[in-house]
Amino acid sequence: MIKQIDHIGIAVNSLEDQLPFYRDVLQLNFIGFDEVEEQMVKVAMLKVGDVKIELLQPTSDASPIAKFIEKKGEGMHHIAYRTDDIDTQINDLQQKEIALIDQEARHGAHGTKIAFIHPKSSGRVLSELCQVEGGQHE
Amino acid sequence: MIKQIDHIGIAVNSLEDQLPFYRDVLQLNFIGFDEVEEQMVKVAMLKVGDVKIELLQPTSDASPIAKFIEKKGEGMHHIAYRTDDIDTQINDLQQKEIALIDQEARHGAHGTKIAFIHPKSSGRVLSELCQVEGGQHE
Repeated sequence: MIKQIDHIGIAVNSLEDQLPFYRDVLQLNFIGFDEVEEQMVKVAMLKVGDVKIELLQPTSDASPIAKFIEKKGEGMHHIAYRTDDIDTQINDLQQKEIALIDQEARHGAHGTKIAFIHPKSSGRVLSELCQVEGGQHE
Repeated sequence: MIKQIDHIGIAVNSLEDQLPFYRDVLQLNFIGFDEVEEQMVKVAMLKVGDVKIELLQPTSDASPIAKFIEKKGEGMHHIAYRTDDIDTQINDLQQKEIALIDQEARHGAHGTKIAFIHPKSSGRVLSELCQVEGGQHE
């Protein structure tokens, strides 16, 4: 079952240019920086209420985020939904014949298990399922 | 002060085509339909945790949502942040020389006061401030 939105991913050319709007202007709670080498992105994380905002800057032209920006421009990239049981959720989507990018959960950042749903099945919005490993979160 | 994300707006060509993913596949809580004549959109609202998802279908080619889809394709359109005092928030942004689409709060749907921030000031993401009229919400 999906409990809440875990985070919203936003593709940017430069964390340095865009972070001040979220951190200093809107004054959201800045958590810190991270790097996800597999996705070739640097990340700046903020929190507002129960939801995180992840600003994603590509570190290589081969990054999926670089390709997204080239095609669509900077902007919102994906919505991640938090679930307590990602394996059951994936199985449920497969039963419903929803196209998945990941047929099995894989390891994400910060001890999460994640799987992406194909945008063709989700209104052209890239959607991610995400579970905090080791059980319930917060 | 911004407390939480109020809603995420998603531009779609057809509520009928896209609502089933959110309502029946992800099984988010479906609140109902609405129409905002000023914006020339039909809306399907869902809730997940504290955040609403608004699917926005244009009812006219002149709708801002129709123009967005024409330019960018279907997908995430805006993030709305909830504040308890939108007038103070607008004043604060003006002091910080942030470009606003609305220099004063205007009436939104469901007894809200809203103002849009220009995407050029907010990382190419259209951002909305929103306050429930009559004070605090929930």
